Amino acid sequence: MTKAPAMIGVDWGTSNFRAWLMDAAAQPIDSVTSHEGLLKVPRRDFSAALNRACGSWLDRWPALPILMCGMVGSRQGCREAAYLKGDAGAGDLAGATLAITPSPWDVRIVPGVQSVSYDGSQDVMRGEETQIIGAVAMGAPKDGLVCMPGTHSKWVELRDGRIISITTFLTGELFALLRGNSILTGLIEAEGEVASDVGARAFQLGLRMGQDGGALAHKLFSIRARALTGTGSGATAEMLSGLLIGSEIATLHPELADKEIVLIASEGISDRYRTALQQRGIEALSVNGDEACRAGLSAIAREVPEWKVAA
Amino acid sequence: MTKAPAMIGVDWGTSNFRAWLMDAAAQPIDSVTSHEGLLKVPRRDFSAALNRACGSWLDRWPALPILMCGMVGSRQGCREAAYLKGDAGAGDLAGATLAITPSPWDVRIVPGVQSVSYDGSQDVMRGEETQIIGAVAMGAPKDGLVCMPGTHSKWVELRDGRIISITTFLTGELFALLRGNSILTGLIEAEGEVASDVGARAFQLGLRMGQDGGALAHKLFSIRARALTGTGSGATAEMLSGLLIGSEIATLHPELADKEIVLIASEGISDRYRTALQQRGIEALSVNGDEACRAGLSAIAREVPEWKVAA
Repeated sequence: MTKAPAMIGVDWGTSNFRAWLMDAAAQPIDSVTSHEGLLKVPRRDFSAALNRACGSWLDRWPALPILMCGMVGSRQGCREAAYLKGDAGAGDLAGATLAITPSPWDVRIVPGVQSVSYDGSQDVMRGEETQIIGAVAMGAPKDGLVCMPGTHSKWVELRDGRIISITTFLTGELFALLRGNSILTGLIEAEGEVASDVGARAFQLGLRMGQDGGALAHKLFSIRARALTGTGSGATAEMLSGLLIGSEIATLHPELADKEIVLIASEGISDRYRTALQQRGIEALSVNGDEACRAGLSAIAREVPEWKVAA
Repeated sequence: MTKAPAMIGVDWGTSNFRAWLMDAAAQPIDSVTSHEGLLKVPRRDFSAALNRACGSWLDRWPALPILMCGMVGSRQGCREAAYLKGDAGAGDLAGATLAITPSPWDVRIVPGVQSVSYDGSQDVMRGEETQIIGAVAMGAPKDGLVCMPGTHSKWVELRDGRIISITTFLTGELFALLRGNSILTGLIEAEGEVASDVGARAFQLGLRMGQDGGALAHKLFSIRARALTGTGSGATAEMLSGLLIGSEIATLHPELADKEIVLIASEGISDRYRTALQQRGIEALSVNGDEACRAGLSAIAREVPEWKVAA
């Protein structure tokens, strides 16, 4: 006998779709993943896509609250949910969810968040806010810094469980561009598979290159110059990864000193950031990104005034 | 009646070929340009390619000294000319030219230069050394900094007309990658052609964003975040250009204060760097890149011990 379902949570990005049937305590009863990301939905018929993925749940429990997060709330998505400005906690996000009407179901979208970056510029997120709320619901510190590595790495400052600052780095996107289409690409292809100890040393070397936080465009050429002058690392992609992550962490370093750091990520990338932080003498707590997303959807759904998700 | 030819100078890169028939005073008598760059030479038969481009000169004056610079001396080129290490002036480069034998003609290649960067790393150039020697031959200061904007921007310190330090930035390559294949590409395409005053303001704004020299990966995302939050410049490509050039100049800024700056570049890119330097209160001298290359080939050829190029 399964537990009673209390809601459906959906993380819908540009390339992937994930959904969970959950009980009132955020425990998954069933789950679905598909590659029908937003950009792949025929005729932008998002209701049909949702029904394709979750039809068996929807047929049986058509009145369940459905909470969606991620790019589904962007201009490219189902309906644009304006960024929530200012401090954002679970209650603020719940109150700002966008109801999708007309719809055969009771669907809401979590808005993205707009906040100020460490350097005073405006910064944004969409989807990550839900993971952060989830991490706090799972017991992560309510005050400190959250690091969310990825295509666009985000460092988020929390105070009393609310998002008060966002700083995004193009780290993962730069890595992919430079690995695949730059003056470094030929080197990387020529090196092929590298031994893990060679890779680890090259990553460490890259971290040290990045640790003063400056002159990234010069250091990128430096990787090439090393190979041309016979002092290459033999693992250019690892060195590049280290340089980009090291440069990112260097920027935040003055902020890191006295704060608790929580890493929300999948395992592979989480290890790289853990290594980079350890090189600075910092130990981070880790939270799995998928679990955080599910926990966040549940925590926000429980605070939506129009819903009664809590047990 | 034309002047007597004293040499042939060739600038042979991966995508283009240029050659000049010159008199002993570096004045061009005739010139040739073609798109037969090194990577496009069939069966890597460089003699045949040289003959296709310059056959009419070679038939008439088969014994003329031929001096080539650029990637023709790299591993991808005609013959690898090892980097000249240490201070490099016209005489050093002339003494280190690599004679191509066997050859139907009297051909030498100018070596590239390896030197130390401002941050202590090893850096390299191949082709630019000839332009620098040429700029000095044309009257540019023998002591100071030379800025050579481009795909790989170079800042070169000169002492008594010799290259003593090289710092390369991936600026132009990053610009092309980010304009064409990044999160900024959609914005740039949607903006289309922008008015020149809008472009100029966006470029200035980018320069200011870059002027502290740090956190490039964050500032790149910032350009995107501005557009998403309604404070975009309307000219994303110009802002990106300003950010990258501003970041480059910020790195060198402590070095710039008391030095004469010479810009060696084509006109379009030279204007951008001139604007960027002016924002720092620095006026640069300009030297045309093509003229500098020709003058450099002549100046180096005149010091090749085996040749008698001087009048």
